[in-house]
Amino acid sequence: MSNKMTSSVIALLTDFGLSDHYAAALKGVIYSIHPQAAVVDICHQVKPQNIREGGYLLKQVYSLYPKGTIFVAVVDPGVGSKRKAVCVKSHDHFFIAPDNGLLFPVFQMLKQAQVREVVNQKFFHHPVSRTFHGRDIFAPVAAHLSRGNIFARLGPKLRSIHQLAPLKLKMKRGHIEGAVEYIDHFGNVITNISKRHFEKAFPHTSQHRVQIKMKTIPFIYQYFLEAKGEKLIAVWNSSDMLEIAVPNGSAAQTYHLNISEKVVIDEA
Amino acid sequence: MSNKMTSSVIALLTDFGLSDHYAAALKGVIYSIHPQAAVVDICHQVKPQNIREGGYLLKQVYSLYPKGTIFVAVVDPGVGSKRKAVCVKSHDHFFIAPDNGLLFPVFQMLKQAQVREVVNQKFFHHPVSRTFHGRDIFAPVAAHLSRGNIFARLGPKLRSIHQLAPLKLKMKRGHIEGAVEYIDHFGNVITNISKRHFEKAFPHTSQHRVQIKMKTIPFIYQYFLEAKGEKLIAVWNSSDMLEIAVPNGSAAQTYHLNISEKVVIDEA
Amino acid sequence: MSNKMTSSVIALLTDFGLSDHYAAALKGVIYSIHPQAAVVDICHQVKPQNIREGGYLLKQVYSLYPKGTIFVAVVDPGVGSKRKAVCVKSHDHFFIAPDNGLLFPVFQMLKQAQVREVVNQKFFHHPVSRTFHGRDIFAPVAAHLSRGNIFARLGPKLRSIHQLAPLKLKMKRGHIEGAVEYIDHFGNVITNISKRHFEKAFPHTSQHRVQIKMKTIPFIYQYFLEAKGEKLIAVWNSSDMLEIAVPNGSAAQTYHLNISEKVVIDEA
Repeated sequence: MSNKMTSSVIALLTDFGLSDHYAAALKGVIYSIHPQAAVVDICHQVKPQNIREGGYLLKQVYSLYPKGTIFVAVVDPGVGSKRKAVCVKSHDHFFIAPDNGLLFPVFQMLKQAQVREVVNQKFFHHPVSRTFHGRDIFAPVAAHLSRGNIFARLGPKLRSIHQLAPLKLKMKRGHIEGAVEYIDHFGNVITNISKRHFEKAFPHTSQHRVQIKMKTIPFIYQYFLEAKGEKLIAVWNSSDMLEIAVPNGSAAQTYHLNISEKVVIDEA
Repeated sequence: MSNKMTSSVIALLTDFGLSDHYAAALKGVIYSIHPQAAVVDICHQVKPQNIREGGYLLKQVYSLYPKGTIFVAVVDPGVGSKRKAVCVKSHDHFFIAPDNGLLFPVFQMLKQAQVREVVNQKFFHHPVSRTFHGRDIFAPVAAHLSRGNIFARLGPKLRSIHQLAPLKLKMKRGHIEGAVEYIDHFGNVITNISKRHFEKAFPHTSQHRVQIKMKTIPFIYQYFLEAKGEKLIAVWNSSDMLEIAVPNGSAAQTYHLNISEKVVIDEA
Repeated sequence: MSNKMTSSVIALLTDFGLSDHYAAALKGVIYSIHPQAAVVDICHQVKPQNIREGGYLLKQVYSLYPKGTIFVAVVDPGVGSKRKAVCVKSHDHFFIAPDNGLLFPVFQMLKQAQVREVVNQKFFHHPVSRTFHGRDIFAPVAAHLSRGNIFARLGPKLRSIHQLAPLKLKMKRGHIEGAVEYIDHFGNVITNISKRHFEKAFPHTSQHRVQIKMKTIPFIYQYFLEAKGEKLIAVWNSSDMLEIAVPNGSAAQTYHLNISEKVVIDEA
């Protein structure tokens, strides 16, 4: 990436919801600094202060965005405390967020990532409040970055960022034990078991089954509509992760499934 | 429409909701192909897999959008099956969607519509998943269309598109029997009876009344504020359709009204 | 502000919700008149017909937006009646809305505001319905304003706009009595008592306490994370207003707090 990489897309991910003015405050600050910015909402409905969910959502989409896109992620239960603000620069993108684990799922995917602590008040919105760094730090820094590559001026280099404890994932030949990582608004239950994990643990086509909360699913489908009347199915989803679903219904509601619930694939 | 009609407005209608990353995935794909696109959200809160509701919403707004606007509509319970993907070109707009009836309400309104099946993988996002054609087919095709008129290269011509069974609507002199077509978030109940239907069935000013679920409404108002303390009113709405409403309240909740409920206008 | 001030940012605040097509109708009308407009959603989830809430939200963000931004605010229980449509022009911004008090909280903050009644049908979307002035009057007027300064042609000058009855606020040395003005989606309870009010009533550092609905809070924190395990805290928020909160929880739900609830600060 040349030092001149700039972009006009600034993509926002927050837990601010859509019924208050908080997301709109970020947009006002951004447009005031860079009127030609293209501000895109990724999601503002991360469950309040749920860092893990925010990190999951960002990981699902960042690689689809154009080179130069600047991501602003704000799920920030520690606002006003001593947690750092960070900016991560990868080959293609910038990520600005509180350093509380929110960027960790993306960070694990990146090659050649550089990290800066964000401390240069020249790029902040003043006066800086102690409770709304989205408006006063993250949004204005993103807007300034979209006008010119000021990455190296944001603050000192950091070696790494705050980590998130990983969800359980254990594999051996013929056996995988994982966990529910996300539940979408259809009620589909997405696990942390990838098709690649599966192919490693089950290298030869063999009989296998999926177990979750006392339920056994005898097969993993390639897509939803292969199902023929079953109530509960397992399928490789559009990100090649194991997903548990009720066709035309909500698996999470019907079977009372929650984040972190254990999921096992073993031989039938 | 000349072959060179292009537009930068790409308008999205889906049942993806706003709490997941699905709508954001479409936007990332679009901006990556056409960074200057203007992506507009029509609605992402169509009730899950409710094709009829999606079709209704699109019909309400498409004609307000500028010439060249490309509509991407994704309510797609059959994703991964053999249902086709289609692109409809009218004098002013393009519409891209699964061929499951979603475009039918708009299609009935169009003059000179041309239809192509969408099969040319050159315009897809690869690898094409079996469960997320919004990201892999509909969004990238829209983005390519917004850069140049590739309509004729999308795939073979089709004569028509998948139809939706119409809601009941029977008319004779002095009598109309229709149905509830949509309920909005205020709880207003919108029927499939238009002012034009009414003027045809009741050509001379006459006493008439509206009946719905055991309730009788003795008059159709021209606008909400004509009402003077009634609990339940009938009014010609902003699209000249018969609407049943509770002023400052929810008609749907108060009177337990649902989609498809029978509505009758007859002589008083 | 020169007569040539134009802007491409048009910012929307409504109670239309996000599950219907109403907000999308406004956007279609705007893009049809001004394809290069940058339409920004401030909020569409004002509680239905809640003028006070809409006015509060607009006041929180308008000053963050760039010079020339045009705000369209539609919370309009009186649509179709004789309430006026107005356009307010300040040094930096335009505001277009029904004249029902919605703009009053912002209007009180402005210097040099000019007001015009909006009556010039040349700038409307025709035919003008009696129930959807957002689509037919407010949106098209905003789009025309964003293309050129037609403010003086909108209609006759007005001396002022419709007022909102203020929430209770009484101050004397050592005592402030205010009220809850807004509750956000986290359940944080925002009052109409500002830090400036507080510093005037309590000029010397002194012992004070906050009382709301039988609860006493012994201190006002500077930011959330100063709290050390208390269930209910008071804090100066990012707009320097007194806010009542439950750290990592909902104060409104836990303590059944509502808009207008009395809040007192006095000496401990």
